[in-house]
Amino acid sequence: MLLVKGKVKSVYDTENAEEVLIKYHDKVTAGNGEKEDYPAGKGSLCCQISSILFEKLADLGIRNHYVRQVGPNNMLCKKVKILPLEVIVRNRAAGSIVKTTTIQEGQPIIPAIVEFFLKDDSKHDPLLTPDRVKIMGIDPKPLQEQASIINELLLNIFNLTGMDLIDFKIEFGIDNHGDLLLADEISPDSMRLWSKENQDRFDKDLFRLDEGDLVPAYKTILEKLQLFV
Amino acid sequence: MLLVKGKVKSVYDTENAEEVLIKYHDKVTAGNGEKEDYPAGKGSLCCQISSILFEKLADLGIRNHYVRQVGPNNMLCKKVKILPLEVIVRNRAAGSIVKTTTIQEGQPIIPAIVEFFLKDDSKHDPLLTPDRVKIMGIDPKPLQEQASIINELLLNIFNLTGMDLIDFKIEFGIDNHGDLLLADEISPDSMRLWSKENQDRFDKDLFRLDEGDLVPAYKTILEKLQLFV
Repeated sequence: MLLVKGKVKSVYDTENAEEVLIKYHDKVTAGNGEKEDYPAGKGSLCCQISSILFEKLADLGIRNHYVRQVGPNNMLCKKVKILPLEVIVRNRAAGSIVKTTTIQEGQPIIPAIVEFFLKDDSKHDPLLTPDRVKIMGIDPKPLQEQASIINELLLNIFNLTGMDLIDFKIEFGIDNHGDLLLADEISPDSMRLWSKENQDRFDKDLFRLDEGDLVPAYKTILEKLQLFV
Repeated sequence: MLLVKGKVKSVYDTENAEEVLIKYHDKVTAGNGEKEDYPAGKGSLCCQISSILFEKLADLGIRNHYVRQVGPNNMLCKKVKILPLEVIVRNRAAGSIVKTTTIQEGQPIIPAIVEFFLKDDSKHDPLLTPDRVKIMGIDPKPLQEQASIINELLLNIFNLTGMDLIDFKIEFGIDNHGDLLLADEISPDSMRLWSKENQDRFDKDLFRLDEGDLVPAYKTILEKLQLFV
């Protein structure tokens, strides 16, 4: 039974009440769903990249919802209640932070910052301050700490592939035992990756900015991860 | 000579290079200038209320740009370079924080929070985090500290008038000596005041929400300040 229909993924229940099946579709959207496309093979690439990263992060001590991949597009995951927050970690300025501040694109952000956005398309996912998160009844501290550690680990992983991790978005959930788990997906759909060699993009900005095809770029990321991680 | 033409005030230079004249117009705007009106007497009311509050805050140790009132609509002030930030202090949730979070209108915020918004109409004055302010090259700490102290003092002042200070916006500037001064204006145009008795509004929301006339409300605030402060 379908539990949640997201913009590019769907979540189904399974025979195990503690697990769900997440299906990655051959679909990409941008601008809060205003722009969309259906690139063949994209769902499987995001599913495989996410699987590698969740497995690697679990090995490195980051508790997450991943159980195992089930076929090319499907991922078996622990059932969690997703927090209504998008958690963004930034190592360089790009995207919305450039549009809504005086900070220039590409400016290094050292130390990296962890930001929170309300997960609510009808409100256009507005920026939150840590104070606002607290008033909403969620303690931002453990999320900031986990996100910072995950950033260090992902920076190292993508370093091996010759990619600069500019920023990424993660989500967290609470499982049936009340534990905080990294959830959702981790793929070039939810991060910015620039080639260290020439700053070429290998992420969803190719689609957002009409600068090239996603599928060969995502395939390059998958192959590098398979090779080096 | 006109130095700055704001939405409801204009700033002129004077014969003294260290001072400017700020003229308060009989004008009110809302929604980033989308809605406007010209209520007779409103400029003078805001000028007088601001004068009383700047004087009182100076007495209480808050360095600010106010020198003296010059006629009903004009204020002589020290010349400052205004920081490109709107600093907002919130004691209860109202306005934009309600629209962009899950926080309910009227919810008490204890302790009060200090927030920053980019002063840029073309970008619709977006919310900033303290991290973003820092990356923009401005240290948020002294602004947060000053704003918190000003909040305590204004809460006490408006308490005397039977008004709940819900939130307020202030701006800071740097004078010719490099000192940080509270600047701009402090009036019911830049704060929310609810009667303690029955939660009636005595601020610009009357105009924003089409709930009544500004001038009698602002006049009530001026008279209470003249009587009790």
